Amino acid sequence: MKKITISDIAKEAKVSKATVSLVLNNKPISVSDKTRENILKISKELNYIPNSIARSLITNKTETIGIILPDIVNPFFSEIARAIEDTAGKLNYNVMLCNSDNNVIKEEKYTKLLVSKLIAGTIFISGGNSKKSLEILKENGIPVVFVDRYVEPFRDYSGVFCSNSEGINEAVTYLYNKNMKSIAFVTGSMELETSKLRLTAYAEITKKLKIYDKSLICESTYSIEGGVAATEKLLSSNKKIDAIIYCSDVMAFGGIKVLKRKKLKIPKDISVIGYDDIFFCEYVEPELTTIRQPIYEMGKEACKLLISIINGKTVNKKINLKSKLIIRGTA
Amino acid sequence: MKKITISDIAKEAKVSKATVSLVLNNKPISVSDKTRENILKISKELNYIPNSIARSLITNKTETIGIILPDIVNPFFSEIARAIEDTAGKLNYNVMLCNSDNNVIKEEKYTKLLVSKLIAGTIFISGGNSKKSLEILKENGIPVVFVDRYVEPFRDYSGVFCSNSEGINEAVTYLYNKNMKSIAFVTGSMELETSKLRLTAYAEITKKLKIYDKSLICESTYSIEGGVAATEKLLSSNKKIDAIIYCSDVMAFGGIKVLKRKKLKIPKDISVIGYDDIFFCEYVEPELTTIRQPIYEMGKEACKLLISIINGKTVNKKINLKSKLIIRGTA
Repeated sequence: MKKITISDIAKEAKVSKATVSLVLNNKPISVSDKTRENILKISKELNYIPNSIARSLITNKTETIGIILPDIVNPFFSEIARAIEDTAGKLNYNVMLCNSDNNVIKEEKYTKLLVSKLIAGTIFISGGNSKKSLEILKENGIPVVFVDRYVEPFRDYSGVFCSNSEGINEAVTYLYNKNMKSIAFVTGSMELETSKLRLTAYAEITKKLKIYDKSLICESTYSIEGGVAATEKLLSSNKKIDAIIYCSDVMAFGGIKVLKRKKLKIPKDISVIGYDDIFFCEYVEPELTTIRQPIYEMGKEACKLLISIINGKTVNKKINLKSKLIIRGTA
Repeated sequence: MKKITISDIAKEAKVSKATVSLVLNNKPISVSDKTRENILKISKELNYIPNSIARSLITNKTETIGIILPDIVNPFFSEIARAIEDTAGKLNYNVMLCNSDNNVIKEEKYTKLLVSKLIAGTIFISGGNSKKSLEILKENGIPVVFVDRYVEPFRDYSGVFCSNSEGINEAVTYLYNKNMKSIAFVTGSMELETSKLRLTAYAEITKKLKIYDKSLICESTYSIEGGVAATEKLLSSNKKIDAIIYCSDVMAFGGIKVLKRKKLKIPKDISVIGYDDIFFCEYVEPELTTIRQPIYEMGKEACKLLISIINGKTVNKKINLKSKLIIRGTA
């Protein structure tokens, strides 16, 4: 079957396509009430759905927003995507999903695809050095809202972020007060702003407490595999480690796997703290102690902000939410 | 900044818009090589990205496919969505993501939105009685591929499914051979084809083994909360239960939570088997024994099938993959 078009309605109503179009768009036209009602009745009977693409071509934009994110399988990103889509749907926007895999080339390819589809704006969760993609979006006048991570040199862009220092301060201080002085820190890629900020927060508080030890810092990727690799590396150094703070929960899950394999008891032999508070934290055993980010709220606020910018109601705005230590079973 | 258009290139190259359009689309036109090269050079310098929407209006379809699914936060669906998007991206298609929340009204709203955006086709993971949505898609000539679940009366549609009986037979027989005769079964909503098929498989094998007991069957929803509620209900009956088979892993996670709260040891006091084999199964403790579906492959095959149908290369086709018991720590 072919899509129901204005032609089908015109044929059925025995009027011209122009008449149908004017009636359906509620434009001035001198037709009898009977004809008008008949056209509306037929369009309803045929389940006619207007072609929003035609309108897009006139306005030069669609009611579609893009989401560029590293990987929807990571629950942190699926929760953000869900919040964005919920919020967009309520405002009659659609979302196009793009997984960059932290790959700059893929990110650029998707950026161009989104531009060619005349998206109204995009939520951008950078997977690394996203300068080129952001330049393309800028050149094409497409509004961007960052979530979770800034990208240099676009620091003035709108975005929704969660402060990194409070949660890390709380976590390190909590461990320190339990007499754990040898606290390892597993960060994500140093290309990402969040990794840098979290490492800075860790360095500041550990230096203040005089327990800073550079050899306990390990850079990895925000993934289960990244957590596995970093933990193996830390353990292979044979240093005494009281606790490990991972910069994402999925990293911590990978780490816990390695620690259990090495017959280390959590939290008796070693404490573990994650980051994000994805919903799975409560379903591992022991439940994961973690630094909570208000994930759903971050996505929701980002989407509201983007649509407000698209409609010219907001210019640049930054929303800063707070992180917080949630104590459960692993520390 | 405004989107770079053909006008910008024309202005810069000091030629007409028509000339730019003909050169960029590689259409016959008598211009000097110098002019042609200059136009190409400028379009590259300006990072010009053609407007694919304009082309869509002529062909009456876009290179965009829709995914309608219950909830992207459920790892089963996020893995399927990821596979679809990976496969679509390679074939230069975009995906639009729609979460139905198993809500028929939301499903319909999204279906209409997708139709109005001239999507080329849609992958449909039904959240219940989706008859109306599927009729709308049919009336508008939009190809549909089902994943995981049929919807009546559209049984002849293309789709990718995973057989339900092998895995359940394996699971029940495995438990039976370990001398567990009182095997509870927690299904999803009976509005879904998968729930019905899995229950049928369970009933057949338990009747064959003469251990069928209707009071051990509990209908719930495919969610953590659904698993919690069903398990509480089963335990409140005070019947002896040797094992529980849950029709999804997230349900099993919810169930394990309740069992642990009731101080039941898994698998010593009670065995647990899940369904799906989402990647988190290996990160709970004990690791979840489950009936594996090849989730990524299901999404990948569905996307390939849909695009093949869109391009007129396939008509109706069903792909049936196999389920399989994966023995880990909970049974």
